[in-house]
Amino acid sequence: MSAFTEERNKLTAKFKFENFVSAFSFMTEVAIWAEKMNHHPTWHNTYNEVIIELTTHDEGNKITDKDQVLADKITELYKKYQG
Amino acid sequence: MSAFTEERNKLTAKFKFENFVSAFSFMTEVAIWAEKMNHHPTWHNTYNEVIIELTTHDEGNKITDKDQVLADKITELYKKYQG
Amino acid sequence: MSAFTEERNKLTAKFKFENFVSAFSFMTEVAIWAEKMNHHPTWHNTYNEVIIELTTHDEGNKITDKDQVLADKITELYKKYQG
Amino acid sequence: MSAFTEERNKLTAKFKFENFVSAFSFMTEVAIWAEKMNHHPTWHNTYNEVIIELTTHDEGNKITDKDQVLADKITELYKKYQG
Repeated sequence: MSAFTEERNKLTAKFKFENFVSAFSFMTEVAIWAEKMNHHPTWHNTYNEVIIELTTHDEGNKITDKDQVLADKITELYKKYQG
Repeated sequence: MSAFTEERNKLTAKFKFENFVSAFSFMTEVAIWAEKMNHHPTWHNTYNEVIIELTTHDEGNKITDKDQVLADKITELYKKYQG
Repeated sequence: MSAFTEERNKLTAKFKFENFVSAFSFMTEVAIWAEKMNHHPTWHNTYNEVIIELTTHDEGNKITDKDQVLADKITELYKKYQG
Repeated sequence: MSAFTEERNKLTAKFKFENFVSAFSFMTEVAIWAEKMNHHPTWHNTYNEVIIELTTHDEGNKITDKDQVLADKITELYKKYQG
């Protein structure tokens, strides 16, 4: 199941971590995959919380397959940070 | 000179980079210093842009010395990404 | 149980990951903790493998409490990458 | 000019930084590019020093174009950490 939900032409999800260090380690993993996929999130971090928004700017800010693929990858990466 | 300006009890700054990889490398450096100082930003990234907000939650969301010290460090770290 | 074993005045351990991205995400987490503890590893990475050596240079390259504390932290961080 | 020299079928280079945090920030940038190029270094870090070795395992540990391209990119990334 995806961690993301659809909201105003974006896929969005909020992730919680044990602390800032784990949150940033997760962000590093996401960053490398995003760059590899040539598709980058808009994301926000405060301490142990990471909010990610995915949309395809090139397609007029619509949700596309690129967003779905990255959302699935992020959902999978998050698993190891959960209990 | 600080990259940050005061705005509604926060120090805020916007940073631009050549690309996402440089932006995230800068974020990694900031992340390590923030953790070391035990003082964490609220920050936002989209592609080559990073917006950082600093305030001290424990002091009722006021700007404190901790914010000034981290702002100065971030200003210094950014220098190598300029020019 | 520690992932590290003692070898010629060093604590050493070898870690395996699913791929390079996971290995580097683990390294990021270790890097932040190491900097926070002011105690840095000698480490080697090739693709999905990370070898870490810990010793205390300031004490004439002996294993000290600083090495044990960092070894324990690294052992704990690695857990989420297993299984 | 490349920071790398040829040595026993490898391109190797040693990089120095102001401190560990800068060294690791550089490593993060290299890591993302390496993953994007699907070509990974063997590298070693102790505090402010990073040693990188490039060779192409799939080609029987010879230096190939992939190594040259990554060496050039790393040489370029290092520039901003220099004086």
